Amino acid sequence: DVSFDPKEHQHLRYNPLRDSWVLVSAHRMKRPWAGQVEKPPEEHIPRYDPKNPLCPGNTRANGKVNPDYDSTFLFENDFPALQPDAPDPGVDQHPLFQTRAARGICKVMCFHPWSDVTLPLMKKQEVVKVVDKWVEILEELGATYPWVQIFENKGAMMGCSNPHPHCQVWASNFLPNEPALSDRCQRNYFEKHGEPLLLEYARQEAERKDRVVVENFAWLAVVPYWATWPYQTLLLPRRHVLRLTDLTTEEREGLADIMKQLLTKYDNLFEVSFPYSMGWHGAPTGPHLKEDNSHWQLHAHYYPPLLRSATVKKFMVGYEMLAQEQRDLTPEQAKADAAQWIPIKGRCGRA
Amino acid sequence: DVSFDPKEHQHLRYNPLRDSWVLVSAHRMKRPWAGQVEKPPEEHIPRYDPKNPLCPGNTRANGKVNPDYDSTFLFENDFPALQPDAPDPGVDQHPLFQTRAARGICKVMCFHPWSDVTLPLMKKQEVVKVVDKWVEILEELGATYPWVQIFENKGAMMGCSNPHPHCQVWASNFLPNEPALSDRCQRNYFEKHGEPLLLEYARQEAERKDRVVVENFAWLAVVPYWATWPYQTLLLPRRHVLRLTDLTTEEREGLADIMKQLLTKYDNLFEVSFPYSMGWHGAPTGPHLKEDNSHWQLHAHYYPPLLRSATVKKFMVGYEMLAQEQRDLTPEQAKADAAQWIPIKGRCGRA
Ligand SMILES: O=P(O)(O)O[C@H]1O[C@H](CO)[C@@H](O)[C@H](O)[C@H]1O
Ligand SMILES: O=P(O)(O)O[C@H]1O[C@H](CO)[C@@H](O)[C@H](O)[C@H]1O
Repeated sequence: DVSFDPKEHQHLRYNPLRDSWVLVSAHRMKRPWAGQVEKPPEEHIPRYDPKNPLCPGNTRANGKVNPDYDSTFLFENDFPALQPDAPDPGVDQHPLFQTRAARGICKVMCFHPWSDVTLPLMKKQEVVKVVDKWVEILEELGATYPWVQIFENKGAMMGCSNPHPHCQVWASNFLPNEPALSDRCQRNYFEKHGEPLLLEYARQEAERKDRVVVENFAWLAVVPYWATWPYQTLLLPRRHVLRLTDLTTEEREGLADIMKQLLTKYDNLFEVSFPYSMGWHGAPTGPHLKEDNSHWQLHAHYYPPLLRSATVKKFMVGYEMLAQEQRDLTPEQAKADAAQWIPIKGRCGRA
Repeated sequence: DVSFDPKEHQHLRYNPLRDSWVLVSAHRMKRPWAGQVEKPPEEHIPRYDPKNPLCPGNTRANGKVNPDYDSTFLFENDFPALQPDAPDPGVDQHPLFQTRAARGICKVMCFHPWSDVTLPLMKKQEVVKVVDKWVEILEELGATYPWVQIFENKGAMMGCSNPHPHCQVWASNFLPNEPALSDRCQRNYFEKHGEPLLLEYARQEAERKDRVVVENFAWLAVVPYWATWPYQTLLLPRRHVLRLTDLTTEEREGLADIMKQLLTKYDNLFEVSFPYSMGWHGAPTGPHLKEDNSHWQLHAHYYPPLLRSATVKKFMVGYEMLAQEQRDLTPEQAKADAAQWIPIKGRCGRA
């Protein structure tokens, strides 16, 4: 009888944050790739581009002029998916034709005045300023909106249409699908086990070590046991923290530190400015601020698309869309690759 | 007071097959696109390529030689994500580290001996042969496997690595996430309303007409009310049918007919061989053949990525991955575009 080897034998792993399963078929990495090859990210981005609407002092599509900012800069999205004043759609009585009102606000936040830096290339104190700004905007929009989604699309491969380092903040009058699902899963776990799911998970991973990519006194970044994207990571505080707004000054500094480390490793994996989508999930806000949300633990998800090289990504297509997510290497292999993500001289000159 | 206009005012729509919501922000189509532009699909594919492992008479990666087939051709995937004999992973006692055995089989099915045709360019009788083969393989693998996923990834943009017209069939010893969710939703609806969800839905859409793209005596293709992808469609029989294996000869012919019509419209929308992932969902098989599955209705999902042109797709990234799916035109606008999807002379020479 052959004994089970996760690198050779496909199996399913359970994602407790989404109550779903992922198919792990690591032996599939052996197949040759004859499919689509992506354009590698642009190498030469000018520090200042007079035509880029995100640069300091430039005029945006709506005629507004950016201030000559020297740190972070926050403004309202000129083409928002959510507006504060959309009228109510009214009611169709049929259960298969249900509509609901959606109201909200979309903001854009520049990380730095220069277009030719990214978070891992910024100074630690500059990244701390980004974290501080996240806290500030969550405080402000979270006062009324039940959900404030902070997210970054990095790289053209991830639909990002501007190379200037920035993220987005979309606040809504509804709890979107993903946080609603994660809320339900964390609540069920808490009711059953008497402690927050992700607090116990971080403790387990810190002990098991097989999937830890970087850690410091306050934070832990792991390739989750149930990772879907090849080099997906989950960033977790060690302490029980509900929201970004609950972080201490030291924890904010620690966050800047671990983000720089994690993202530098990413950049060095395939020697390319690593594309990804990332975002924060914490306890809901607005009316939920008054509720008991002890089942929640703050975390960030990093979803990077690359699989084999700077130009070959994982396609989440037919089987993944219609049946179930599937991955081509184990999370432990991804973490082992990460151990070799050594800094490349030159890239991190400003570190 | 402004009255609600779905093209101007964002709103949420309910997806009853997935118990989730989609954010519809049609006014967002107005934003200029400065992001990634895709390579248009290759125009000149040779009818026969001596190096293509899917062509008749050629040798595949594992040394096997394809027969000189003249219709459909089915064989086992040389790099399968699912194998019939993987050993059991054993049990980790911790609820956050759950693993399950996964066993199955992966097949590839060529639609036609020629590499330079696609379903819409094939003769109707040739498409009927494809449908017949789907029925045959579902009959065979569905005898034991609880789920048989038939799907097609079309175009390099959808991770398809071979231009030869083909689909895949992955059968598994487990019910994957997506059909499990859809099963639950259809069951709940049936228990509450006493009739199959999608049967009532097809009847409603046939009456309302706003989202019907094509129809014939046995089938209906609509942009579903809750569509996520810009030009997503749902293909439904008019009669209550649980599985592909239950179709009559006339319904199989009708299916070939409506597929040709729908896919011709797709090709003509942006005047390009339209990329998509599609797949069939029907009542589960294997041990489930003996159960009452009256809540099920057979259907196919088409998920095409293009948004604005042959080279600009919709990116399902940051907000979509972390919060909720979002679309930039209403399903009714997509259907109105479809009404203008007129056949282009020349493309459909073989029709
Ligand atoms: O099997 P193929 O066509 O080589 O591969 C394609 O389809 C599979 C099933 O959807 C995906 O897992 C792969 O990422 C994709 O590239
Ligand atoms: O807002 P952007 O950066 O122009 O657009 C990008 O991010 C959005 C939020 O994830 C997506 O809806 C768009 O499809 C994507 O291109």
